[in-house]
Amino acid sequence: QLSRLRDRFSLRTHIIRWIIFILIGIITAVIACTIDIVIEELSELKYNFLKSSVDDNVTVNKSGGDLALPYLWWLLLSAVPVAIGAGMVTYIEPITAGSGIPQVKSYLNGVKIPRIVRVKTLAVKSIGVITSVVGGLAGGKEGPMIHAGAVVAAGISQGKSTTFVKDFHIFKAFRDDHEKRDFVLGGAAAGVSAAFGAPIGGMLFSLEEAASFWNQNLIWRTLIASIISSFTLNIVLSAYHGVSGLTFTGLFNLGKFDHPLTFEYFELPLFMLLGVMGGLMGAAWNFLNTQINKFRSRFVPWRAGKVCEAVLVAILGVTLACAMIYYINDCRPLGNDPTIHPVQLFCEDNEYNAVAALWFQTPEATVRALFHDPPGSHKILTLAVFTIVYYLLSCSTFGLNVSLGVFIPTALVGAAWGRLVAMLLFYMFPEAQFLHPGKYALIGAAANLGGVLRMTISLSVILMETTGVETSFFFPLIIALISAKWVGDYFNDGIYDTVIEVNHVPMLPWEPLPQYKGLTAQAILSKPVVCIKLRDRAHYIYEVLHKCNHNGFPVVDDVEGDRRSEGRVCGIILRSQLIVILLKSLYVENQRFWQQETTIQTFRDVYPRYPSIQSVKPLDRKFNYTVDLSMFMNPSPVRVNTYDSVPRIFNIFRALGLRHLLVINNENRIEGIITRRDFIYK
Amino acid sequence: QLSRLRDRFSLRTHIIRWIIFILIGIITAVIACTIDIVIEELSELKYNFLKSSVDDNVTVNKSGGDLALPYLWWLLLSAVPVAIGAGMVTYIEPITAGSGIPQVKSYLNGVKIPRIVRVKTLAVKSIGVITSVVGGLAGGKEGPMIHAGAVVAAGISQGKSTTFVKDFHIFKAFRDDHEKRDFVLGGAAAGVSAAFGAPIGGMLFSLEEAASFWNQNLIWRTLIASIISSFTLNIVLSAYHGVSGLTFTGLFNLGKFDHPLTFEYFELPLFMLLGVMGGLMGAAWNFLNTQINKFRSRFVPWRAGKVCEAVLVAILGVTLACAMIYYINDCRPLGNDPTIHPVQLFCEDNEYNAVAALWFQTPEATVRALFHDPPGSHKILTLAVFTIVYYLLSCSTFGLNVSLGVFIPTALVGAAWGRLVAMLLFYMFPEAQFLHPGKYALIGAAANLGGVLRMTISLSVILMETTGVETSFFFPLIIALISAKWVGDYFNDGIYDTVIEVNHVPMLPWEPLPQYKGLTAQAILSKPVVCIKLRDRAHYIYEVLHKCNHNGFPVVDDVEGDRRSEGRVCGIILRSQLIVILLKSLYVENQRFWQQETTIQTFRDVYPRYPSIQSVKPLDRKFNYTVDLSMFMNPSPVRVNTYDSVPRIFNIFRALGLRHLLVINNENRIEGIITRRDFIYK
Repeated sequence: QLSRLRDRFSLRTHIIRWIIFILIGIITAVIACTIDIVIEELSELKYNFLKSSVDDNVTVNKSGGDLALPYLWWLLLSAVPVAIGAGMVTYIEPITAGSGIPQVKSYLNGVKIPRIVRVKTLAVKSIGVITSVVGGLAGGKEGPMIHAGAVVAAGISQGKSTTFVKDFHIFKAFRDDHEKRDFVLGGAAAGVSAAFGAPIGGMLFSLEEAASFWNQNLIWRTLIASIISSFTLNIVLSAYHGVSGLTFTGLFNLGKFDHPLTFEYFELPLFMLLGVMGGLMGAAWNFLNTQINKFRSRFVPWRAGKVCEAVLVAILGVTLACAMIYYINDCRPLGNDPTIHPVQLFCEDNEYNAVAALWFQTPEATVRALFHDPPGSHKILTLAVFTIVYYLLSCSTFGLNVSLGVFIPTALVGAAWGRLVAMLLFYMFPEAQFLHPGKYALIGAAANLGGVLRMTISLSVILMETTGVETSFFFPLIIALISAKWVGDYFNDGIYDTVIEVNHVPMLPWEPLPQYKGLTAQAILSKPVVCIKLRDRAHYIYEVLHKCNHNGFPVVDDVEGDRRSEGRVCGIILRSQLIVILLKSLYVENQRFWQQETTIQTFRDVYPRYPSIQSVKPLDRKFNYTVDLSMFMNPSPVRVNTYDSVPRIFNIFRALGLRHLLVINNENRIEGIITRRDFIYK
Repeated sequence: QLSRLRDRFSLRTHIIRWIIFILIGIITAVIACTIDIVIEELSELKYNFLKSSVDDNVTVNKSGGDLALPYLWWLLLSAVPVAIGAGMVTYIEPITAGSGIPQVKSYLNGVKIPRIVRVKTLAVKSIGVITSVVGGLAGGKEGPMIHAGAVVAAGISQGKSTTFVKDFHIFKAFRDDHEKRDFVLGGAAAGVSAAFGAPIGGMLFSLEEAASFWNQNLIWRTLIASIISSFTLNIVLSAYHGVSGLTFTGLFNLGKFDHPLTFEYFELPLFMLLGVMGGLMGAAWNFLNTQINKFRSRFVPWRAGKVCEAVLVAILGVTLACAMIYYINDCRPLGNDPTIHPVQLFCEDNEYNAVAALWFQTPEATVRALFHDPPGSHKILTLAVFTIVYYLLSCSTFGLNVSLGVFIPTALVGAAWGRLVAMLLFYMFPEAQFLHPGKYALIGAAANLGGVLRMTISLSVILMETTGVETSFFFPLIIALISAKWVGDYFNDGIYDTVIEVNHVPMLPWEPLPQYKGLTAQAILSKPVVCIKLRDRAHYIYEVLHKCNHNGFPVVDDVEGDRRSEGRVCGIILRSQLIVILLKSLYVENQRFWQQETTIQTFRDVYPRYPSIQSVKPLDRKFNYTVDLSMFMNPSPVRVNTYDSVPRIFNIFRALGLRHLLVINNENRIEGIITRRDFIYK
């Protein structure tokens, strides 16, 4: 009967878990939609205003043209939103800077990153990404949307919010790090799915890039979250765009290719070359970006400076764009104009300026344009200059104190040079019918993304899902991506891993590093270890907690006097538990007062933010009382022998998701302790 | 400099590993092509002959029709190939019976299954599947192709074949169980990819269904193998079918849907209902099949009986098909005939018999027909009877001693009832335009597959890739599949897991079972443990190896007399190593003869098939000599404490891919040993 009770409990937990994943999908999608729609509306307003401003000023004074006023308007409309966004990020929640993917990845690896999954973070990130994209910085909304999904997941699954100091007293069964991590993974998948309308891509993304731990059930759960998310997005956006009828159309964020893309076998080497080029350009981008960010962290340490810097980059972007529009004369006949804001500028009547068309919209719309504009929509010079300008702009943007992702600008640069390659080849071989510029733009985008991000499968699936190309086109995409990744990996790491490394986050790799080979625990353990006796004085514990900030303390027995570090190991106790013991005065001497009501829940209630030792008053008279840890400690800590090999210890550490691991000798006496950092920095 | 040398060695290993994966892809595809083409050619011959036989006999005697001769021919052309196939499987290599997926799955979980990845197995399996499909049994070639991929992978990666007693002395770096398993996983993915022309599906299949261990690099490698495989297949099949030009077309084994499939939101509940139906039918199928197989193993234990049984099922199939053709009068006008062998039979001129069209081709072609035939190609009665007949036939076929997979018949049954549902609904609501019968056949196939196999993601991707539907149709597919899986899981396990369970294969699940909760090592360990002293007599070792068939023996020290099981653990030694020691007489007394040339290679040479203890001559005079195990043993076996919790021990066991694990007490003395079986059967 007990087992049936347990079964029912476990079934209930199962169903609740599924409900949470579905909720994660829905809410993530709603947030993503909101960001999406606000960005679209505001950008529409901005570029409409700029277009009419340009039209007004140039038409008056036809021959010379006075772009000064539109330029100033443009500056204003870029600098102000960027200043707001950068200010919020810098002054309210600095953790929201950047795309958020490296942080989510580190979190999923088991690294504690403070404030990464709070509601406040989500709010700042959302507003930050809206203002930055509307401001016209070379960045995308995708990274922040993924981060948003992670926050939503963490918030819902825990049933409480520390930002609002509100505990709904639901979902208590899921309040531990492992469960929370699984939900966050689902949230990240839902975020990808909402950002691109790519459910399979979202699932694969979380598998390829985000996750550090895997099991079969997780595949399922993340898939559900990402499918629900893309479906919700679809319904909301259909309603918003006023699509009539109930037919499900699918989302093609980067525009659907109308004709199925085909390719000839002899194009494969060409795709491979594009991949190599993407790898080289991506590796250079990563290197350059890292250098710029090093420079930044050295010379712009003050907050105000960081905001100014973001505004400066925005101004630089506008200025370069204006200069391009002014100096490059690329007029195309109206009529088959694929742009929504055709600007006449200095062109003849019935013509529009193709350069302005590239700049007078969000980067995402420009990617769409490069994929789908008919052949002959741009001059070669236009695309060449655009590639260089955008390459440098995106490189200086990533790392600013704004909430922006790197996906869209990278895809944009790639699409530009991919299209450029097709145009150059077509110029040389005018009879080559296969040189469809949109196809090459897609391959170029894939190659450039591969070179910068070093993901392959999820990227190709995402690109396939967002452009609706056939599965038979998977092969060229993956060839370009793999070539890009291999070439890029020869030079440096992907941009996310670079960010993680620069920030000295102790990420555990997937497999033991080759340099572990032949080492034993002896070589990497940390010592001396601070131990606590099975029955120790409160005073000593208080001092130890003050003196060192270790997270776990071995509990020892069989100790002569105060030579604790020579005792036999009998368990381990966490810092947080010791603090709770001191705070609640759980001493042997007053056992009769607390023994009844103290359960495991006493310790769980404070998860995930434990009080610090400073909150314990030091002048308590009970400090000479005794603490009996046998009631509280974990009696079977993971122990390894001094002579065990490091690769195996690593595997145990990683598989069990440990934070610390005791090293003992053959007599079960403590020799040292191993934490995450010992694997990476020794 | 040493580290650079190691780097170069590791780079070389890396490159070789990639080359092996590419080779696996190519060779698997070539084998799959061969099977494919032979089946196609032979079936073409068979059904062409039958068609003309029917035409001849019926035309002569128009009114009554004499189907006796064609029926006899059909019987002969079915029974003979099936008898050959069943005979080969039964008498030459019984392990090739069935689809092979459960066996590959168990192998990848770390269970040793003898002869599963040998060249001989591959040969028998290939011929077996060709004869069985040509014989017309209700089975598919897909499962065996996946098994073939696994064999190819194991063979190539080890650079030697035991069947041909040939060692190429290459790829020696990969001769261990872990590496071999990774290659086999890649081979399985390549097999799926070749069977369906679905590279992403192949990768996901190996992830969702086959794999038991995962890390990020594996995703990559399996993807490469499956892409190369589908590409090779594409080239070979294009050449074979004489497709002109070099344009890559992609493979659509189940026929490409010409018009993009769309759906309305209100169809989603309908898809869910189809899923529920698929779950119910699948669960019933699994139950029925298990019962039939239990009956079989009880009442047909002799080899000849097994062959007869297969022939009987073939005859039953032909008889039922003939009866259907004879009694159901379903004539359709020629012209838009989607079948390649239109049989007139008793129909008017310019008409063909739709029932015969269902039967006069391979099951795969029938699936294609059900997906793509225009509306109104069948009577409702035809499909209803066909569903029932094929359901029962496929149920009695899986488990016969023939090499056949379960994918195609399951899809076929599902496609039949899916189409039937659409036709019934259309009959009731003739104005419902959305009731495209092909679409519902696809959803029905998905639902039925989900109900029987209980996979979801890989199945939906495979179906998408083989029919070329849009990614926006992913959602209905996954809804049907998930409903089917949930409903099915309520009743029983998927068919592969059922087969594994019936055969008592000790598969380690992904996560600790709920019933482990609260248990400690004490509860599941096996004892007493047979130990060996650090310096023990050869005679004792010889006796121990004879008496018990354990695979690993703890090496103990600090022993009083012969009370070995009370000694302190200092290492572990494998049975195979002990046998090699005895065979090569590696004793302390004659150390000077062997110490020079004995290295780790001495022990690795015999991998993977170690000699048995029977090959050691018992009357050797050296049997009183001493063996010093400190030179040979593994000095740091994985040890856990008696009081450690079982879920954690399970996690360590699984993560490290262990075969045995020592349980010690606080004084490092042996308490017991835990193996794979202890987790599952205690």
